[in-house]
Amino acid sequence: MTLSEVVAATGGELRGADPAAAVTGLAALQNAGPEHVSFLANPRYRKYLKTTRAAAVILAPENADSCPVPVIISLNPQLAYAAVAALFAPREPRHLGIHPTAWVSDTAEVATDAWIGPQAAIEDGAVIEGGVFVGPHCVIGKGAVIGAQTRLVARVTVCHGVRLGRRVVVHPGAVIGSDGFGFAKDGQRWIKIPQLGSVRIGDDVEIGANTSIDRGALEDTVIEDGVILDNQIQVGHNVFIGAHTAAAGCVGICGSARIGRRCSLGGGAGINGHLEIVDDVHITGMSMVSNSITEPGVYSSGLSVEPNRLWNKISARLRRLDELFKRVSALEKKMPKDALD
Amino acid sequence: MTLSEVVAATGGELRGADPAAAVTGLAALQNAGPEHVSFLANPRYRKYLKTTRAAAVILAPENADSCPVPVIISLNPQLAYAAVAALFAPREPRHLGIHPTAWVSDTAEVATDAWIGPQAAIEDGAVIEGGVFVGPHCVIGKGAVIGAQTRLVARVTVCHGVRLGRRVVVHPGAVIGSDGFGFAKDGQRWIKIPQLGSVRIGDDVEIGANTSIDRGALEDTVIEDGVILDNQIQVGHNVFIGAHTAAAGCVGICGSARIGRRCSLGGGAGINGHLEIVDDVHITGMSMVSNSITEPGVYSSGLSVEPNRLWNKISARLRRLDELFKRVSALEKKMPKDALD
Amino acid sequence: MTLSEVVAATGGELRGADPAAAVTGLAALQNAGPEHVSFLANPRYRKYLKTTRAAAVILAPENADSCPVPVIISLNPQLAYAAVAALFAPREPRHLGIHPTAWVSDTAEVATDAWIGPQAAIEDGAVIEGGVFVGPHCVIGKGAVIGAQTRLVARVTVCHGVRLGRRVVVHPGAVIGSDGFGFAKDGQRWIKIPQLGSVRIGDDVEIGANTSIDRGALEDTVIEDGVILDNQIQVGHNVFIGAHTAAAGCVGICGSARIGRRCSLGGGAGINGHLEIVDDVHITGMSMVSNSITEPGVYSSGLSVEPNRLWNKISARLRRLDELFKRVSALEKKMPKDALD
Repeated sequence: MTLSEVVAATGGELRGADPAAAVTGLAALQNAGPEHVSFLANPRYRKYLKTTRAAAVILAPENADSCPVPVIISLNPQLAYAAVAALFAPREPRHLGIHPTAWVSDTAEVATDAWIGPQAAIEDGAVIEGGVFVGPHCVIGKGAVIGAQTRLVARVTVCHGVRLGRRVVVHPGAVIGSDGFGFAKDGQRWIKIPQLGSVRIGDDVEIGANTSIDRGALEDTVIEDGVILDNQIQVGHNVFIGAHTAAAGCVGICGSARIGRRCSLGGGAGINGHLEIVDDVHITGMSMVSNSITEPGVYSSGLSVEPNRLWNKISARLRRLDELFKRVSALEKKMPKDALD
Repeated sequence: MTLSEVVAATGGELRGADPAAAVTGLAALQNAGPEHVSFLANPRYRKYLKTTRAAAVILAPENADSCPVPVIISLNPQLAYAAVAALFAPREPRHLGIHPTAWVSDTAEVATDAWIGPQAAIEDGAVIEGGVFVGPHCVIGKGAVIGAQTRLVARVTVCHGVRLGRRVVVHPGAVIGSDGFGFAKDGQRWIKIPQLGSVRIGDDVEIGANTSIDRGALEDTVIEDGVILDNQIQVGHNVFIGAHTAAAGCVGICGSARIGRRCSLGGGAGINGHLEIVDDVHITGMSMVSNSITEPGVYSSGLSVEPNRLWNKISARLRRLDELFKRVSALEKKMPKDALD
Repeated sequence: MTLSEVVAATGGELRGADPAAAVTGLAALQNAGPEHVSFLANPRYRKYLKTTRAAAVILAPENADSCPVPVIISLNPQLAYAAVAALFAPREPRHLGIHPTAWVSDTAEVATDAWIGPQAAIEDGAVIEGGVFVGPHCVIGKGAVIGAQTRLVARVTVCHGVRLGRRVVVHPGAVIGSDGFGFAKDGQRWIKIPQLGSVRIGDDVEIGANTSIDRGALEDTVIEDGVILDNQIQVGHNVFIGAHTAAAGCVGICGSARIGRRCSLGGGAGINGHLEIVDDVHITGMSMVSNSITEPGVYSSGLSVEPNRLWNKISARLRRLDELFKRVSALEKKMPKDALD
């Protein structure tokens, strides 16, 4: 590939190199050789800029002068990097049809330009739209609908009646439409509440490996367009996640939580049920949201590690914090009057 | 369906409506139309009561007067709702037999009224009792026993020798009987300890999507009757969970923890290994239990979010908490004698 | 089996018993009968020593005198226990060949002494080396390489191009090589960054049930030799985990974190991305690592439960901690001069 093709994909501006020069791939600044394009998007990696050997580095205008090799100037280097990565991504041969080891119910509808991979199972009445890729070992439940161009990588379970939008990507182990955790108490026994709702996933959603999304109790669980969910995430029944919200790995969202648009949930964050988070809220890693959040902004409750010996002291003191407040109040009362300014 | 059929299912008392009136389904208070039954169980939703258009609302006696439409009085509205949801749940046609794409070992025993779904695998010596539903892509290991009327929804892995009770429900992605995390250290190397125990699951247990339950090292991991486990839960080897205990999503329980009956573990809670929690203990979300709990009650250690700027200040101060205690002690010592009352 | 065979496996020294005596299995101290060998490795269980009925107990020299029955003295009783457990583990009949319900691509290479179990799928160009066990429902992606003697228990997904070393054990539900969570922002939309790297797993690694390991963005995610990962773990793209490190259940490791050798990560711990942890660091359960750790040692930030009423008081006080520091500073300033020593 020539540098000019790379530059075209980024929409950026090449400086200091021959556009006809050939490059063979993308690499990180510290690993790139003269045959690679590289990029600087995260400021943590700026330290590698001055010694990079890349053919050209995609970077923001303000970093151009610090770069010892040719540059591709971009106002959004991360986005430009995404475009170049797509350029170098291996082209999959297009699959069409139904693998002989797959099982497709007679009453399912599969578009002629869809692919049903090895040992996949498509149950009664399911609809697989055009251009869909159903990877090996996927299970598509009764009456589920998989929107056009959606890609189920492998071993994805879509339960009965669930609807996925277009261009959705779902990774192995994900489960969409399992029963919500709904029970009524009868004395000490738990009585299961049939979960009559379903799940609706919008367009351009990404769902990570081993993530699970429960179906609604009565109405549907809803994931709007452009939401991205990482691996090992739990989404309870009747949760609503607004468009373009991102959740990192191991997030847990309890039933009936309503999360706004363009939010981000850091890794391991926990969201309580039956609450509302407005648009543009950002929760940092391992934080817990117990109540509704009504103002956009960044919120936290995670604590970062200290040496264990110090932490044990702190946490023992923490248990006596109420007492300390009382001791300070007592001191304030006892302070001689003439000490007051 | 008529209102009188609905009322019969709830065991409640209809007021203000014609028992012969027809209803077509269940809906939440705010979404119900005159063709729906609704219910009020969670007080958070009381605000929707006064504007509901439902045909009738299932509610507790004390809420009857606030309801603008007919009511079905119940002493346990959540339980009554469960009964009505079961009434409206779609009836699955009964499946019997073995799907042609399933593989069943010659030495497995499958009851004639059980169902083995598409591409399921039943290994040597496994026993599938009467009325069991084995959904698509389930794997039942050697010598495992699946008790009568149990339902493995889809893609459930039950490892060798594991025993499930009757009327158990297991959701997709769950793994029961994987090896416990048992290793001995030999210098810097970890030597695997073969896990010779198994898992025993009682009757009427529910196990959520992508939950994993490890087999015991020597004795069995035990889940008693009526336990309900949500999604993405980890249960270590030799854990014991007492009857009717509930665990919400993302809970982690380390090896050899013993949890009592009728306990609840909030979402994301972590339970250390080799400890005991007595009956009727309730752990709130994202809390950590490091030591045995010997008294029933509610226990917590989760912290809820604050605006990030404030939280950073708090957490920086927290690191100096030990110092603050010392400063207060110094102040107390220095306080002039005559200031003391 | 005779006691002498057991003793030979442990490399220990038998005292007080006839080496020719027969034993039938291993059991915990409190459950062992005169036909069992038992062991004392965790000091928590010393309380069961004085009443044990075992034929012989594997223990450290310092515990020998407290034991009422014969002993097998070992300097590493946990390791000796592992050896004896291996002795009593059921011998699996060796499987060879390809199960008739498996699907193997014409271009995959499968060693003649490997086993491909029921309904497994082996895609184009995959390589299955000698002695490998591919259990039921495993999916091996295009060009993936499974090293000799590796055991994929059941329903493991290995994505395209991933390389596993020798003698690796992977438990059901694990996903290796799913796309990393890499996106660029274009206005409010997330644009997927193709993940062009892969995953390299060393020798003698163990990977737990429902654990997921993402492929790298450009370079590979790397798990070195002898690493042990428990269940429900999330490993982000481009993570590096050094040899012999252990991670307990529910750990989350964000992208590009670099973790040293011989580390341990307690259950539910969270490791932020783009940081480095040196060798021999131990993180206790449910702790969060937000910054690089440059010194070996034990680090913590988890808080253990208190009764809920007390905890609510503590956490309310915590929110006012900054104010308390200011109040103490004010007191210190106001303290009369003559009070100072």
